Amino acid sequence: MTESTLIAETCAAIRPLDEAAMAAAQARQDLLTKPQGALGRLESLSVQLAGIQGRPLPRVERKAVIVLAADHGIAAEGVSAYPSEVTAQMVLNFLRGGAAINVLARQAGARVVVADVGVAAELPAHPDLIARKIAPGTANFAHGPAMSREQAVRAVETGIALLADEAARGLDLVATGEMGIGNTTPASAIAALYTELPVAAVTGRGTGLDDAGLAHKIAVIEAALDRHRPDPADPLGVLSAVGGFELGAIAGVCLGAAARRIPVVVDGFISAAGALLAAAICPAVKPYLIASHLSVERGHGPIWKALGLRPLLDLDLRLGEGSGAVLAFHLVEAACRILSEMATFADAGVSGPQG
Amino acid sequence: MTESTLIAETCAAIRPLDEAAMAAAQARQDLLTKPQGALGRLESLSVQLAGIQGRPLPRVERKAVIVLAADHGIAAEGVSAYPSEVTAQMVLNFLRGGAAINVLARQAGARVVVADVGVAAELPAHPDLIARKIAPGTANFAHGPAMSREQAVRAVETGIALLADEAARGLDLVATGEMGIGNTTPASAIAALYTELPVAAVTGRGTGLDDAGLAHKIAVIEAALDRHRPDPADPLGVLSAVGGFELGAIAGVCLGAAARRIPVVVDGFISAAGALLAAAICPAVKPYLIASHLSVERGHGPIWKALGLRPLLDLDLRLGEGSGAVLAFHLVEAACRILSEMATFADAGVSGPQG
Repeated sequence: MTESTLIAETCAAIRPLDEAAMAAAQARQDLLTKPQGALGRLESLSVQLAGIQGRPLPRVERKAVIVLAADHGIAAEGVSAYPSEVTAQMVLNFLRGGAAINVLARQAGARVVVADVGVAAELPAHPDLIARKIAPGTANFAHGPAMSREQAVRAVETGIALLADEAARGLDLVATGEMGIGNTTPASAIAALYTELPVAAVTGRGTGLDDAGLAHKIAVIEAALDRHRPDPADPLGVLSAVGGFELGAIAGVCLGAAARRIPVVVDGFISAAGALLAAAICPAVKPYLIASHLSVERGHGPIWKALGLRPLLDLDLRLGEGSGAVLAFHLVEAACRILSEMATFADAGVSGPQG
Repeated sequence: MTESTLIAETCAAIRPLDEAAMAAAQARQDLLTKPQGALGRLESLSVQLAGIQGRPLPRVERKAVIVLAADHGIAAEGVSAYPSEVTAQMVLNFLRGGAAINVLARQAGARVVVADVGVAAELPAHPDLIARKIAPGTANFAHGPAMSREQAVRAVETGIALLADEAARGLDLVATGEMGIGNTTPASAIAALYTELPVAAVTGRGTGLDDAGLAHKIAVIEAALDRHRPDPADPLGVLSAVGGFELGAIAGVCLGAAARRIPVVVDGFISAAGALLAAAICPAVKPYLIASHLSVERGHGPIWKALGLRPLLDLDLRLGEGSGAVLAFHLVEAACRILSEMATFADAGVSGPQG
């Protein structure tokens, strides 16, 4: 990764989880007034959070979802049910607070950070819009690489920089989110490469393709992988060949957060594909990732499996934006609160198991 | 059900869901700025809530979890890993705010209502403890009926009355909760009767039995069902033979809530067994129930299946108290907020699907 000092330094800063903090958290879980293990995944989540944050009592007061928006040249191949102009329209909807992610983030007490990393439209300046456009959409990867290698590096660096800015504002927990008409197509291409599954096994209907549309989308991805033959061992090459700007930026957010010991709640199929790229760039990022939910998009489960993660929720979502990740924030917060706020058997004068 | 005017009147007051409100909620979901159906189970949940509350925009501002505590004579058979005195100790822990349910309810903005419906100890008077003791624990149903038929009626009536009191304080959403050492044993007996599965298929380790303890528990339940031969068509007879006071009260809470068009989020295995009794008393209660989670307790899944419900969460919980139900409150609230707060395509000037 010598081509980017920022990426190399970020990866070098990612340390293993803090074993002492994890042991302390587990020891406390076993003293709380409940049968050992009775809170199931909330308990293991609390231990993971302790290890990530490096403290026995993790806290998640300052929360954000970073929504990365970009367009895709591949949309010209008719791989999405919606036209590309919806990307920019939805960015404006985010800024006005009317989208699902705004509603769910409000409920979860998380700030919504909207960044243009490659929308194919001139967006009006807005105090809440972070303008980091790498290019006005990727090129159509049916005909050539989606982006230059230099742009791929910049996409990842942009995610790292965005995370750094949010960390400077105070950040205990971050979610990935995205908006980009056509972006399930690059995500499926990336998923096929890293899960080593056939394209058809990791390609779904996105925002709502019919059977013919789905078959066409699979054919487009197969042809592109055949044309570019990207090497999974070179994730920036993969991003350049068949990626998207927001996918690279999601990878950067994951890496930047891990380098700062901030837990990353990964959202839907696109976000998971971005996390796959992050893990390919630096496998040490994996313990910092929390799988929020299993969507109906076909390749989501295989990506979680490839990352060794088990999603917290299974609600038939397929929206993206960070919506499932922000829903999972409630469970992450519950895990922290249980560890910090529950009484121990000794505190409460409650008897332990008999005999 | 002529033996109880209150139960009969409550059942008679349970109406079908409001179809007009459901249609209006569904129509609005389809106008919101997301692909139709993209929020999956949150969308169907919002429609159910509209039908329950009888308004196109359901709301869940005033929330409570009703925690019903009672002891079990069957605990003398060695069916629990914990001694019976833990029931009373945990009630005191609830009143001091140190238990998991207190922590999780605080996070969810729900009040915790603690009622003694049959604890086998004199509990000190406390402003937050509702004293409705039917008897100091059930009788040991290995040797005779757990309670008299009159007590079974009172248990259900007590749940109805508790719900009525909470409704008078203002209540948009209620969760069932419970505490009672030994109560997975009566719950498994009830589950076996209504799922028509072998006892072993619906009996688990409760708070932590080993293999020998589990085998003994199964044998105790099989012997009791063989002795009493309760008739599933007579749910008050079932409750009397092999039930628990909190199980009857949970059934009453479900019935009382449905009669007032208040959605009921049903918690773990014990609560689900109480909901089974409610559905046996009055099948019309079912559409008012929301299955919060799938626990690791073996009989939980079969009960959800018998009730025709799909749980929202699957987090390996096995605590009870209402903990999983209160976690699910966040999802119920999200469903309502999405419906009320999201912009429509027309509001936001976002294009719909192409062609």
